[in-house]
Amino acid sequence: MKYDIIVIGGSAAGLIAAITSRKLYRDKKILVIKKLEKELVPCGIPYIFHTLGAVEKDYMGIEEKFKANNIDVLIDEVIDGNVENKRILTKGGKEFEYDKLIIATGSTPFVIPIPGHDLENVMTIPKNYKYLGNVHEKIKNAKNVIIIGGGFIGVEVADEIKKSGKNVTLIEARDYLLPASFDSDFGEIAKQEIEGDNVKVLLSTKVKEIVGDNKVEKVILENGEEIPADVVILATGYKPNTELAKKLGIKISEWGYIETDDYMRTSIKDVYAAGDCVQHKDYFTGKPSRLMLASAAVFDARIAASNLYKLKLLRTNKGSLNAYSTMIGSKAFAAAGITEAVAKAEGFDVIIGRAEVVDRHPGKFADASKIIMKLIFSKECGLLLGAQIVGGKSVGEIINIISLAIQKEVNVKDLLTMQIGTHPLLTAAPTVYPLAVAAEQALAQM
Amino acid sequence: MKYDIIVIGGSAAGLIAAITSRKLYRDKKILVIKKLEKELVPCGIPYIFHTLGAVEKDYMGIEEKFKANNIDVLIDEVIDGNVENKRILTKGGKEFEYDKLIIATGSTPFVIPIPGHDLENVMTIPKNYKYLGNVHEKIKNAKNVIIIGGGFIGVEVADEIKKSGKNVTLIEARDYLLPASFDSDFGEIAKQEIEGDNVKVLLSTKVKEIVGDNKVEKVILENGEEIPADVVILATGYKPNTELAKKLGIKISEWGYIETDDYMRTSIKDVYAAGDCVQHKDYFTGKPSRLMLASAAVFDARIAASNLYKLKLLRTNKGSLNAYSTMIGSKAFAAAGITEAVAKAEGFDVIIGRAEVVDRHPGKFADASKIIMKLIFSKECGLLLGAQIVGGKSVGEIINIISLAIQKEVNVKDLLTMQIGTHPLLTAAPTVYPLAVAAEQALAQM
Repeated sequence: MKYDIIVIGGSAAGLIAAITSRKLYRDKKILVIKKLEKELVPCGIPYIFHTLGAVEKDYMGIEEKFKANNIDVLIDEVIDGNVENKRILTKGGKEFEYDKLIIATGSTPFVIPIPGHDLENVMTIPKNYKYLGNVHEKIKNAKNVIIIGGGFIGVEVADEIKKSGKNVTLIEARDYLLPASFDSDFGEIAKQEIEGDNVKVLLSTKVKEIVGDNKVEKVILENGEEIPADVVILATGYKPNTELAKKLGIKISEWGYIETDDYMRTSIKDVYAAGDCVQHKDYFTGKPSRLMLASAAVFDARIAASNLYKLKLLRTNKGSLNAYSTMIGSKAFAAAGITEAVAKAEGFDVIIGRAEVVDRHPGKFADASKIIMKLIFSKECGLLLGAQIVGGKSVGEIINIISLAIQKEVNVKDLLTMQIGTHPLLTAAPTVYPLAVAAEQALAQM
Repeated sequence: MKYDIIVIGGSAAGLIAAITSRKLYRDKKILVIKKLEKELVPCGIPYIFHTLGAVEKDYMGIEEKFKANNIDVLIDEVIDGNVENKRILTKGGKEFEYDKLIIATGSTPFVIPIPGHDLENVMTIPKNYKYLGNVHEKIKNAKNVIIIGGGFIGVEVADEIKKSGKNVTLIEARDYLLPASFDSDFGEIAKQEIEGDNVKVLLSTKVKEIVGDNKVEKVILENGEEIPADVVILATGYKPNTELAKKLGIKISEWGYIETDDYMRTSIKDVYAAGDCVQHKDYFTGKPSRLMLASAAVFDARIAASNLYKLKLLRTNKGSLNAYSTMIGSKAFAAAGITEAVAKAEGFDVIIGRAEVVDRHPGKFADASKIIMKLIFSKECGLLLGAQIVGGKSVGEIINIISLAIQKEVNVKDLLTMQIGTHPLLTAAPTVYPLAVAAEQALAQM
């Protein structure tokens, strides 16, 4: 059977690639081939374990969207193909011809090869609802849970399991939490927020072995310490799913991701890629990045779909800004752009501007929270390079002001005199709006 | 006595003019002369009547800031001066010499001259804590409160008094609420949000007379209807305080505000102005605007102070974006830039992009709210001209993404592929991020 556009994968990138394609090319026949029957909201996964309380509550519910947009869907797996005659073959034995192909095959948990990683109750966090339902059951029945890896997934899962009263130990090899997107000062705030009577955070700590008789019983650290465990969660990163891309002969990066150009085109004509399986680049250095975020996947997918037939979206993919946000305990954390540590390592001469303000005014409203903001500017030209924020829930959108500011090459003076809207119940006072305060503090050092 | 910099006025503009001056000119002698002993957070005023519960809770508490920044403060009123020899004279009989003068004298409620406006219990909402304490007492003792004027102050005050269980009637002459910054579709949502068992909104309604024997008893509408009232609040706008500026011979605009150039310089050398007393201009048309916002006042003040000695801040004042936000009932409302109605009246050919999404993902979190967003683009070039949003509290910062986007001349394609950060507990899903959804919808019409 022949389709104009075939999208492989049905999570964030696949969904948006298909829907954007439909919106732009009304007469094209579009097919999505996806492995799983039901997709989860990827970033919602950690919240299955307590706040949502059930894997079912994290369903994306995209079937109706496909139907409403006249997009055909096949639950199957593409296992091979031939890019010369533009055909792909599924595990179910079906063959399809495409005019344009978008690969959005996503990622799979990376399992660190320590002894005992294959014991029962040593789990990962894949985007798979059956598996995650099982993880949820095991956690419910556990007393002691160990989480290996203090990145976003590890921290979010630890924070959720904490709320259900289990004993949680979070182990991170580096010397602070969330090192991929925050500096150590913000990592320390995250640690304080997550630690508690039933939660221990071990930094600069490596696991030597996971031990048990069939089922995990304890974890032995490199320093010899032993910690009892009923469940161990490996939150040690994800690897791109590129088996199919390799079979099709698509160029793969040194780090094992699909290579694309700025328009999300792979090395093979009429084959595009988007999402976790793509080799992203850093926004400021162009160096390869291991970033895997649903928001970045959606960004890829819109660019890929827009540029399928002509290069409609001339705005190029300038690399990934790493705009993140999360909640830890009662605080929202967010970051975008480059960290101070990376900026210095890369040779940027930076000026740091800081603000500590309240996100309501006057600060006497019941839901007021303190915002701590750190802005990283180039000393050379005052350009905004990055930001880190902790505070109330509004931080989740403040980081998007900053993300846009970086993309539009805003400098310290622009930020200082940016016109903003403020309201007592919604924001900091105009007199101490955090972006202006931090910009002013940076400018004073220039 | 001689000062390098004298600031007249101690509210948002005066405070920031003085503090920015101190940060930029460390060795200058700075004096602030202000009429009131204690300033209120201007936008917090409506919340005195219920949420804060007392006028004291809305104090700005700026005395310490002045002290910490080595700024002298005099509680007095400047009543005259001579700009030739750079001297000013206070009501208290003091005379000062200045090198640079910043006028930030603010605004006063405009009282519509209807019969009965001077009866007892007919009140306004000035930035004066003694007066407002009195208003608060009168409201507490009232059963029926009528608010004349459905702009921001009228709506916010009505919403607050509503919460204390009084019978509230809100009267607006135009055919929808908040007409200065929203189109009628959003005005209708505001009306639905505020109306209730004890709140009535009367649109396209004018007051003929306020009636009472000394004390107000009722209001008679132009259609003859009579409404009983124990307290009437006139929320019919503010007029700039320009008596002093007139005495000093400063050029006043046709509408009665102080005229300044893009660097906040008045017609007289070394005299600057900032805040409500200044004639603002519309961002897109340059026409005079009646905008009076604390956030705009702060913006003025930073520009004025930065440019006192040299034009340090070459970024000019391009006119006011009218970035606003407020809460009505349980919903946050925000707007920036031009409305659809004004755009059409001014001759812009516009395309409207809309989004209706949930501000959490999945939408099953307890604090999830629906966001309704309307973006106004130029049909000609896709430039973003304005936005209106209603939703949860994050709307207060989403409007600042839009405000920055307008200032950085973002177009519909930029918005569609803007890199953003998202998180289940903090924002809409990346797949339906409202700015992208509304941009996509607009682009499809171009």
